[in-house]
Amino acid sequence: MPGGEFNVSPSVPQLPAESNGNDEAWLWAQIKAEARRDADSEPALASYLYSTILSHSSLERSLSFHLGNKLCSSTLLSTLLYDLFLNILSSDSSLLAAVVADLRAARVRDPACVSFSHCLLNYKGFLACQSHRVAHKLWNQDRRPLALALHSRISDVFAVDIHPAARIGKGILFDHATGVVIGETATIGDNCSILHHVTLGGTGKAGGDRHPKVGDGVLIGAGATILGNVRIGDGAKIGAGSVVLIDVPPRTTAVGNPARLVGGKEKPSQNADVPGESMDHTSFISEWSDYII
Amino acid sequence: MPGGEFNVSPSVPQLPAESNGNDEAWLWAQIKAEARRDADSEPALASYLYSTILSHSSLERSLSFHLGNKLCSSTLLSTLLYDLFLNILSSDSSLLAAVVADLRAARVRDPACVSFSHCLLNYKGFLACQSHRVAHKLWNQDRRPLALALHSRISDVFAVDIHPAARIGKGILFDHATGVVIGETATIGDNCSILHHVTLGGTGKAGGDRHPKVGDGVLIGAGATILGNVRIGDGAKIGAGSVVLIDVPPRTTAVGNPARLVGGKEKPSQNADVPGESMDHTSFISEWSDYII
Amino acid sequence: MPGGEFNVSPSVPQLPAESNGNDEAWLWAQIKAEARRDADSEPALASYLYSTILSHSSLERSLSFHLGNKLCSSTLLSTLLYDLFLNILSSDSSLLAAVVADLRAARVRDPACVSFSHCLLNYKGFLACQSHRVAHKLWNQDRRPLALALHSRISDVFAVDIHPAARIGKGILFDHATGVVIGETATIGDNCSILHHVTLGGTGKAGGDRHPKVGDGVLIGAGATILGNVRIGDGAKIGAGSVVLIDVPPRTTAVGNPARLVGGKEKPSQNADVPGESMDHTSFISEWSDYII
Amino acid sequence: MPGGEFNVSPSVPQLPAESNGNDEAWLWAQIKAEARRDADSEPALASYLYSTILSHSSLERSLSFHLGNKLCSSTLLSTLLYDLFLNILSSDSSLLAAVVADLRAARVRDPACVSFSHCLLNYKGFLACQSHRVAHKLWNQDRRPLALALHSRISDVFAVDIHPAARIGKGILFDHATGVVIGETATIGDNCSILHHVTLGGTGKAGGDRHPKVGDGVLIGAGATILGNVRIGDGAKIGAGSVVLIDVPPRTTAVGNPARLVGGKEKPSQNADVPGESMDHTSFISEWSDYII
Amino acid sequence: MPGGEFNVSPSVPQLPAESNGNDEAWLWAQIKAEARRDADSEPALASYLYSTILSHSSLERSLSFHLGNKLCSSTLLSTLLYDLFLNILSSDSSLLAAVVADLRAARVRDPACVSFSHCLLNYKGFLACQSHRVAHKLWNQDRRPLALALHSRISDVFAVDIHPAARIGKGILFDHATGVVIGETATIGDNCSILHHVTLGGTGKAGGDRHPKVGDGVLIGAGATILGNVRIGDGAKIGAGSVVLIDVPPRTTAVGNPARLVGGKEKPSQNADVPGESMDHTSFISEWSDYII
Amino acid sequence: MPGGEFNVSPSVPQLPAESNGNDEAWLWAQIKAEARRDADSEPALASYLYSTILSHSSLERSLSFHLGNKLCSSTLLSTLLYDLFLNILSSDSSLLAAVVADLRAARVRDPACVSFSHCLLNYKGFLACQSHRVAHKLWNQDRRPLALALHSRISDVFAVDIHPAARIGKGILFDHATGVVIGETATIGDNCSILHHVTLGGTGKAGGDRHPKVGDGVLIGAGATILGNVRIGDGAKIGAGSVVLIDVPPRTTAVGNPARLVGGKEKPSQNADVPGESMDHTSFISEWSDYII
Repeated sequence: MPGGEFNVSPSVPQLPAESNGNDEAWLWAQIKAEARRDADSEPALASYLYSTILSHSSLERSLSFHLGNKLCSSTLLSTLLYDLFLNILSSDSSLLAAVVADLRAARVRDPACVSFSHCLLNYKGFLACQSHRVAHKLWNQDRRPLALALHSRISDVFAVDIHPAARIGKGILFDHATGVVIGETATIGDNCSILHHVTLGGTGKAGGDRHPKVGDGVLIGAGATILGNVRIGDGAKIGAGSVVLIDVPPRTTAVGNPARLVGGKEKPSQNADVPGESMDHTSFISEWSDYII
Repeated sequence: MPGGEFNVSPSVPQLPAESNGNDEAWLWAQIKAEARRDADSEPALASYLYSTILSHSSLERSLSFHLGNKLCSSTLLSTLLYDLFLNILSSDSSLLAAVVADLRAARVRDPACVSFSHCLLNYKGFLACQSHRVAHKLWNQDRRPLALALHSRISDVFAVDIHPAARIGKGILFDHATGVVIGETATIGDNCSILHHVTLGGTGKAGGDRHPKVGDGVLIGAGATILGNVRIGDGAKIGAGSVVLIDVPPRTTAVGNPARLVGGKEKPSQNADVPGESMDHTSFISEWSDYII
Repeated sequence: MPGGEFNVSPSVPQLPAESNGNDEAWLWAQIKAEARRDADSEPALASYLYSTILSHSSLERSLSFHLGNKLCSSTLLSTLLYDLFLNILSSDSSLLAAVVADLRAARVRDPACVSFSHCLLNYKGFLACQSHRVAHKLWNQDRRPLALALHSRISDVFAVDIHPAARIGKGILFDHATGVVIGETATIGDNCSILHHVTLGGTGKAGGDRHPKVGDGVLIGAGATILGNVRIGDGAKIGAGSVVLIDVPPRTTAVGNPARLVGGKEKPSQNADVPGESMDHTSFISEWSDYII
Repeated sequence: MPGGEFNVSPSVPQLPAESNGNDEAWLWAQIKAEARRDADSEPALASYLYSTILSHSSLERSLSFHLGNKLCSSTLLSTLLYDLFLNILSSDSSLLAAVVADLRAARVRDPACVSFSHCLLNYKGFLACQSHRVAHKLWNQDRRPLALALHSRISDVFAVDIHPAARIGKGILFDHATGVVIGETATIGDNCSILHHVTLGGTGKAGGDRHPKVGDGVLIGAGATILGNVRIGDGAKIGAGSVVLIDVPPRTTAVGNPARLVGGKEKPSQNADVPGESMDHTSFISEWSDYII
Repeated sequence: MPGGEFNVSPSVPQLPAESNGNDEAWLWAQIKAEARRDADSEPALASYLYSTILSHSSLERSLSFHLGNKLCSSTLLSTLLYDLFLNILSSDSSLLAAVVADLRAARVRDPACVSFSHCLLNYKGFLACQSHRVAHKLWNQDRRPLALALHSRISDVFAVDIHPAARIGKGILFDHATGVVIGETATIGDNCSILHHVTLGGTGKAGGDRHPKVGDGVLIGAGATILGNVRIGDGAKIGAGSVVLIDVPPRTTAVGNPARLVGGKEKPSQNADVPGESMDHTSFISEWSDYII
Repeated sequence: MPGGEFNVSPSVPQLPAESNGNDEAWLWAQIKAEARRDADSEPALASYLYSTILSHSSLERSLSFHLGNKLCSSTLLSTLLYDLFLNILSSDSSLLAAVVADLRAARVRDPACVSFSHCLLNYKGFLACQSHRVAHKLWNQDRRPLALALHSRISDVFAVDIHPAARIGKGILFDHATGVVIGETATIGDNCSILHHVTLGGTGKAGGDRHPKVGDGVLIGAGATILGNVRIGDGAKIGAGSVVLIDVPPRTTAVGNPARLVGGKEKPSQNADVPGESMDHTSFISEWSDYII
């Protein structure tokens, strides 16, 4: 990919490969360093960076503060939400591990993500996802009215609508995120990348298991609509704007409205990489064009 | 669709079939009972439930309070909006009847809707629709600048953009709702279900009657775009992601981009049920696949 | 397009054709006159109109005040944003010229736009675009963390996600606007009209020049997704719901998923008018239908 | 008192002498006319004047709105308080009659009071007193926790601390008002004027009737402290800074720390006018000086 | 003092005499029971009571929440203050013991204090004092800029101005509290009662030990001004409105401006009780009158 | 005054003696340096310090921002007030010179004032005084309704009530400030120090010149009440708690209730220093005691 003058984030950082605990400490140190650098260079933003990052003693405190202030309303106060987020995030180390994995995913996969702190503060997909993780925990603790109230705030504030019962893995990138809708019985594996306006929807008014099951390493393009209890296999790719009503086998690509498998139903082409990580949205174009036209 | 362990809202309540007046009283009693139960089980949410529901003496006061606090801004105060909503809702009993019908629609049709109070408090589609009903009333009273300011707040807060002149029936479910756009001369009949990202749009820069006319009992799938002064007949169904530029006869289904009638233009298949109420999004799949591929 | 009883904005105003400077003075006088008329007729809105328009001495002060109050949060105060907007808007006359051109575009092209003040106060597309212009200026001044923080607020508040590096011309109408996503290396020419849910997206995780280049006078229909460093020529038209992965020559129309040129790849039909200004979304329908079915 | 260049409010308006009902209508018309005049002359204040006065249809709505917005906090919302004030003020016509009498008192007695609207919007003594009247009504309805919560807000916001059980007549001027403290069993008659830092306090830790009883037409100077269940007779005057622990007979003046009657305990001088209305703070000076020194 | 029909708080509760830890648990249970009773009887207040008391798991959380929301401003956020208060209150058990002692003092000594929760929520003197305790702790930790910022907020919000360096014992009742000013080197012992407008002030522009030292069990009446590094002995009483520039021996009473000892300088009368606990403001009156007149 | 362990602000800074312009630049540099030091040592306060001081390019911007955020309400927005303050402060260099002189006065005269930034951010007397200066300017520009609205906000927020017509010199220290009341026709000279609860009040309901005229270098002790059009000569001192109804000659001291001149009416003692600058509150004690008792 050429680009000439464009080279915004040339140095994708080498993350250490150690255990989660160390990852988090390393990441938090990075975030504070980034925020300090930005505060120094931009006084108009320093107050924001101190209140959201630099005044906090840990990543979970910073994130709880930021989400509490983003999601609060006149009837759900920031102090209550801050307390809630901090309690939940502190009570389950897997939540913080997911935060770390999601930050890493955005930083590595999205060329527009210039720093970890940029993602932590500004990515509505990241923030909606972490809020969902807390709501999901509340749902599993049978605190459902609270989980649903939080769900509602996330949908109002970020325009991201993830039912608190939905199960989402880690290393997830919700890029741009506006308009994402994920239903109650949907599941998403690890290391997926999901663009804006993506729907993982149900099929009717009956309850029960009625939403898509998305595997690991899947890439779902902007505006794709996947309906019903279908399986999207590991490493699959769904083209932008597709309407998917069928199972998509592992490592295959589905495109179109209605979506069909690239390479044909019988012997679909196999993706060479992990689309959720490579973020390659368009390499199937020529094949698709051939197939369709 | 069965679902094994999933059975979130098994007991869709039997609503009494009486007159509207009684319906409202019954519903308001239900809502208060639900809120009281939730407040008892979840102290962290009790303050929210008391301020939004339990401190109010009627459904219209509760709704006016909630919308006033949701839609207010630093330049449009909550007290002003509360007053406005309460005056309008109290002045026209058909508005409250529509509130009741919409709450019933969400509760019956959406398996993720666990209670009436859940819909009243948390469903942005429901809240946007009731706010629109008030804006529409203002529009018809020739208070257009106020109607348009309210329209703008609804679009900002809920990401639901319904022109105040649009006419919408009752028993409407806007499910998920983010991204819905409905133009000035559009109309929607009773008992329709409309998913998120649906557009009922215009066709050009000329004024006049230029938006879709949607009949009763219609189901419009996620992301469908219907453009121009076309007619979507009673009981019709529009597939997710469809782009509809043609009339769709009653009880038929249109799918695809551009949308075509399932079963063919000449003798389209007839829907056996009322899609707006059955919420069956996908039963046409096999037929569609046959038709297209 | 007929319209019978509909005739909301019959008198599209004749704007004077002079220099920008005069345009702005004329427009600001119009806006104040409209606001005064509305304040007189609707006391409930007068406070809003005085605080947003009538108390200000210039268009840039009014706009800076309105955006500061719309985009502020508990960690980014309205006074800081007001100051920032006012400084940037006052420092570069081309920004205000673009404001004027955009207001004119909405008033002339959108039949639902009843007045300039209606657009200034209520159009999230207009407000998001002007906020982006300020963020873009900050980006070019190498104040990137601030530009990105502003970008994040615009995406939260308006559900419009335009990367601050994206270059956008003037005379732009973002109609409805919810869900618009425009990537870092995208460019848009002058006098374009872009509907809601439109994506100008990238193609992968590599940095560099990876987003669409849209010419002058282009019309992009609702929900269209354009991916990759493709060229959309001057006067081109993209149908609603299209997924465009190819270059679209000047004055041609692309529709469908995947999008193809109306009239065929080899000798596509030529648009007779400037679609970005005529807003004709659907005249290609019959041709398209012929082509596809 | 001469004054040369000073002549701020030369035209104390002649109020009509009719019944209360008419008074209120006349006064409300005056207030709206004043606010309209000020809004026209000062655009920076117009938004404030429209939201507090000009957008309302009655004096009680305007006052309820203003107090709701002044007294609200993050845990006691403005909408709740607005509703509460409006309900109480509308339910008991004697409350509104007292509002009218108090407005008239400020306008006639305080030369710095330039208009009725000035008092309605800006006089913390007036606003605290009307808030107290509402709290007192709640107290008498046995809604004591709510009355005490309101009491607390009044003390925080206006630094005026009137126990909700205290009984206060009408035609009262609390001038400047900061620091006024009035205990639970205190009573104040009609047409009194009470300056800032005045205390009507109790005497110990026993409950029961333990605070001063102030008659009609009394003037209490700045910083006066009156303690215990003593009687301050009709038309009495209490000098600034006095500490009063004794009964003060009607139409007499008490001054000093501890306070003694001017003219002597046995045959105190008789006030020639009604001090609460004449506001003559200092005519006793020469006599006092003679007496003491 | 009897009082006939007045009998607001007849049942001063018998507090258990145990250790602090138990006291706190007992008190918190009382407070929750009171709040639950009030919430049940007054729906309009229930939201307030749940958010401030009933949703919290401990007294320090409830108090931290309440103070955070009271003292916050647009530049000092409630979440930050909540966090700060909670950390400080949790880190030093003597602070919570003082909270308990102060609540008990108000309940026992102030007949207008109808419940512990009434004091916790509504008494600005109590709230200012606890805020000061936190500021004082910060001061002693050498976090002086933060202590002074908090001091400023306390003075703005409660009109109570206590320098963070001032040392204050426990079992303190600041009754009404508006206007209290306590300087940097002042100290106050245990079980004192201090009325509103009381000043413990300095004497000049030199630094150093320059403010009053108040012993245990002292009662200081409303508006008393004590200046300079003077000693007010244990069990002393200062009359309302006094100006004290001299030492006051233990168990004696000083009154007047300038203050003199009741009974005379040489052999002052001895107080029979502990004034700070008996709250007897006025029993010296006859003696004083005799002495002065 | 000794002080032993107390030595809070030993190093009263040597201010340069140059022209005002230089003073301001020097002071602003000091303030920024202090704020930077405090931000570095206290992360919890850094956000506050950046938003109020460190993000601003000048003292008047910092002060306008701080006052706008302190004085705003839901009906008088911070942006409007910020704009107003900045315009007024920028338009008249004498206002900023007074700001500088007042900051210097607090720093030099008040031993509890540890830094200029401490005064700028936290001293309600300083903030109320600067707000008054702006209100006074508006009053003189015949923008009286706006001046009075501002007056009301100052009185609500700071409990300092200065009529906008009152004329106040520079180099003023309002120490503690709560409860200060200054009437319409009062004047105060340069270099005065005025403690809390001081009243410069009027004498009746007639308009005209009816408030005290205070000369240069005057010290007025806490709780002093001065009533009527009396003259307090240059270098005079008024004892705490005094009630002054007479002229006080230059360089004399008045004390008591009612106030008499120390040393006697005929040949009052002469103050050796400038009390407004020396802040010596109590050196007259022995003389006073002799005189009175």
